[in-house]
Amino acid sequence: MSKITIAIDAMGGDKAPDMVVAGMAQARILYPETRFLLFGDEACLNGLLDEHDALKPAVDLRHTDKSIAGDDKPSQALRRGRDSSMGLAIQAVKDGEADVAISAGNTGALMALAKFILRTMPGIDRPALISPVPTLKGESVVLDLGANVECDAGNLAQFAVMGSAYVRTVLGQSRPSVALLNVGVEELKGKDSIREAAELLRQADHLPIEFTGFVEGDGIMAGEADVIVTDGFTGNVALKTLEGTAKLLGQLIERAFRSSRSSKLGYLLSRQGFQSLRDHLDPNNHNGGVFLGLNGLVVKSHGGANANGFATAISTAIDMAGNDLIRLIREDLENIPHLDETLDGAEPVQSSAQAS
Amino acid sequence: MSKITIAIDAMGGDKAPDMVVAGMAQARILYPETRFLLFGDEACLNGLLDEHDALKPAVDLRHTDKSIAGDDKPSQALRRGRDSSMGLAIQAVKDGEADVAISAGNTGALMALAKFILRTMPGIDRPALISPVPTLKGESVVLDLGANVECDAGNLAQFAVMGSAYVRTVLGQSRPSVALLNVGVEELKGKDSIREAAELLRQADHLPIEFTGFVEGDGIMAGEADVIVTDGFTGNVALKTLEGTAKLLGQLIERAFRSSRSSKLGYLLSRQGFQSLRDHLDPNNHNGGVFLGLNGLVVKSHGGANANGFATAISTAIDMAGNDLIRLIREDLENIPHLDETLDGAEPVQSSAQAS
Repeated sequence: MSKITIAIDAMGGDKAPDMVVAGMAQARILYPETRFLLFGDEACLNGLLDEHDALKPAVDLRHTDKSIAGDDKPSQALRRGRDSSMGLAIQAVKDGEADVAISAGNTGALMALAKFILRTMPGIDRPALISPVPTLKGESVVLDLGANVECDAGNLAQFAVMGSAYVRTVLGQSRPSVALLNVGVEELKGKDSIREAAELLRQADHLPIEFTGFVEGDGIMAGEADVIVTDGFTGNVALKTLEGTAKLLGQLIERAFRSSRSSKLGYLLSRQGFQSLRDHLDPNNHNGGVFLGLNGLVVKSHGGANANGFATAISTAIDMAGNDLIRLIREDLENIPHLDETLDGAEPVQSSAQAS
Repeated sequence: MSKITIAIDAMGGDKAPDMVVAGMAQARILYPETRFLLFGDEACLNGLLDEHDALKPAVDLRHTDKSIAGDDKPSQALRRGRDSSMGLAIQAVKDGEADVAISAGNTGALMALAKFILRTMPGIDRPALISPVPTLKGESVVLDLGANVECDAGNLAQFAVMGSAYVRTVLGQSRPSVALLNVGVEELKGKDSIREAAELLRQADHLPIEFTGFVEGDGIMAGEADVIVTDGFTGNVALKTLEGTAKLLGQLIERAFRSSRSSKLGYLLSRQGFQSLRDHLDPNNHNGGVFLGLNGLVVKSHGGANANGFATAISTAIDMAGNDLIRLIREDLENIPHLDETLDGAEPVQSSAQAS
């Protein structure tokens, strides 16, 4: 995993390109053999690289004066963005020059360009956006986070395969537990697509997956499964609700600490324990959403990431590329003829009593 | 609002009937003129009422030895549960004996029985489950929370009307802000149903509603709108994610406090501030989901509510009945011919550029 080459969009993200270069310098310390193809404005980047002597020899700087703006539409990115810093980073993966691309830029543009340049992997109908979330037990992943507003059972089953491969390569679990996000109000058995996906995953018992059934919203942060599978609409709402709640509770806690003189003193005394909690919840320590299901690896860093967050995204990229995530997904899809057959079959799966 | 009569299912809920009677006794102190019709096992309830002398004169006890179990299916409840404590409480509202019914029992059974006995209000296609949530600013409501897995634009617009009427009667806002829950990933404009519902609500400018557009998952707890409107699947997942995250963070915070001797001391010093935060987030202080859109009021208390939670549900019931929530919903639906016409029209609303 030492000789990974990473193509980097230097111009994407709220604090780019400064935090990009600073994040690369941080990652370089942990991964001294990693090489970087850095796409962006040469003059500006040369200035930044001059501040990082140790990083400089690992970087191959490629100039472009075009970049994707935060409010560019995906269609604009496709028409005019192929020679932008983002488009060129993805193209480097396509051309075999790099093992993985990273951008902290516009998510919609990144997904559109990645899908256009790298194309969808055989056996996958729709790529999905996946991201790790901090849980009570450690870390889980949720997908899809917004690439597909509506999904059928086959899409969800494919997400399960992709998410498990991600957990095996990045989080190092050899047989991840997988659950489908569903509702728990008694008379609702959820949507047909979810019940059918459960049936597909129960049948797919040759996969290196422990399918555990359904999980409700409160099961995400409880860490009830390593991989939480859902459609892109629900996944996006759930993740933003989780992150928003965690962030706002942090503010309420600070307010509680400031509420009296004795509680301010209390804060000073409890600070260390809180710092480790804050570290666990800090999005910068779980940075690196990935667009899975393409013929190439693309990591989406949080737009608001700092250098630390960008370094975490680089670490995720190295884990995925070094452990050959794409090969794992391909094998799981190919070696499970049963799943493939059922997915291709015209007959919808009957939802059994078991599934309800 | 003094002479409200409340029909109560004494046998529903994890800690029933003890917490039900204890909650009634608590509420009785605040609302001395409220009367209760109490349905359940006479011998058992008489024993409990003997412990609450001040409550006893306000209670009209009606015996039934039938009750709905937590795992009864809605279909079972409909077949066999009409003379259960839950069914009879709802029937008392239908018969005009009570102004509102409360149960902490099986949600699915309650929705099925309530819909069957009370019937859906004219102008409403589907009833919805609504519940208050604690936010950074105070309290908001979210609906639907699981009564309808999939919803069209008309359903969502009706939810907006019902949710606003709830906020006007229970939270005392005269012109609530309303937003539709949507996803924020740039290239996605959400589902057609959501864009169309936004169009309906923009046109309905005679309603006592401030329609503010879309809100993402993190906007719920931020209190970005008084009423958050969504389909029952997404609403259920979002609320459970929010509640689960808040609960688990509470556990992590306690763990942080126990992590060292100095932080334990810190806890003692900060305790008061934290207690008020915990009170704000305690579901028992925001108890009382309501099944809206029927010809009668039905409050669903949390199954795990304690006496304090049940008393909060009673308070919600009194606010709704005393401020004539059903009349408000009826007026808003009737006085907005524009909204009604559009809802009845066969032509789907075109999503404009503005809506995307």
